[in-house]
Amino acid sequence: MRRELHDFYHAYIACLNAQAWHDLSRFVASDVIHNGRRLGLAGYRDMLTGNFAAIPDLAFRPGLVAVEAPFIAARLDFECTPRATFLGLAVDGRRVAFAENVFYEIRDGRIAQVWSVIDKAAIETALRGR
Amino acid sequence: MRRELHDFYHAYIACLNAQAWHDLSRFVASDVIHNGRRLGLAGYRDMLTGNFAAIPDLAFRPGLVAVEAPFIAARLDFECTPRATFLGLAVDGRRVAFAENVFYEIRDGRIAQVWSVIDKAAIETALRGR
Repeated sequence: MRRELHDFYHAYIACLNAQAWHDLSRFVASDVIHNGRRLGLAGYRDMLTGNFAAIPDLAFRPGLVAVEAPFIAARLDFECTPRATFLGLAVDGRRVAFAENVFYEIRDGRIAQVWSVIDKAAIETALRGR
Repeated sequence: MRRELHDFYHAYIACLNAQAWHDLSRFVASDVIHNGRRLGLAGYRDMLTGNFAAIPDLAFRPGLVAVEAPFIAARLDFECTPRATFLGLAVDGRRVAFAENVFYEIRDGRIAQVWSVIDKAAIETALRGR
């Protein structure tokens, strides 16, 4: 089960990085909840396409992954260039590095719930340091 | 191994909530690294005692815990009342709820490295809403 969830997660990340949105339903439940909001599959896809529109060089890179069914926990390391405002911060095309620590609950073979925290304080510190 | 790490983690959390700092060395390595900074055990303890000084009603409550050796991943749910400034935000004695998603690497039976992200954006949103 653990190996399957690792494989599942890496396939999901590959789907995101390929922006293969027609495949997203293989990984994400139709009634998915993200940070307490019932986005559903369409809302989840809109969130992701919005992220790529705001951050053209966005890439998902899992640094740490820990799996204990039904949960996948991952630390994603981002290094990217948001065009304008990101998380309410005026990044304006500067390159920023930050992490996201995120939990996923897998139910019936798909992501049913996501609890994500992005390290906004790290971006603020980086922007102040320029 | 998984069960041992769960037991270890719950004993660590109990140690924090009891502010039993004389026991901290049972859980935390002498050269512990926190978010890329080599705090060491004394620096780690100072960070925690500082947190309790700033937030008298601080309590650590793991909502989710996923274990895959050598990692423990946890989502901690906080509901507390920082006295003054917290994460650079003027909380000033208001009650705030927020989460921390955190990974720990366990080496030789102790926490050797921590990667923590606190949901600062959630606190900002809550403060704006008052």
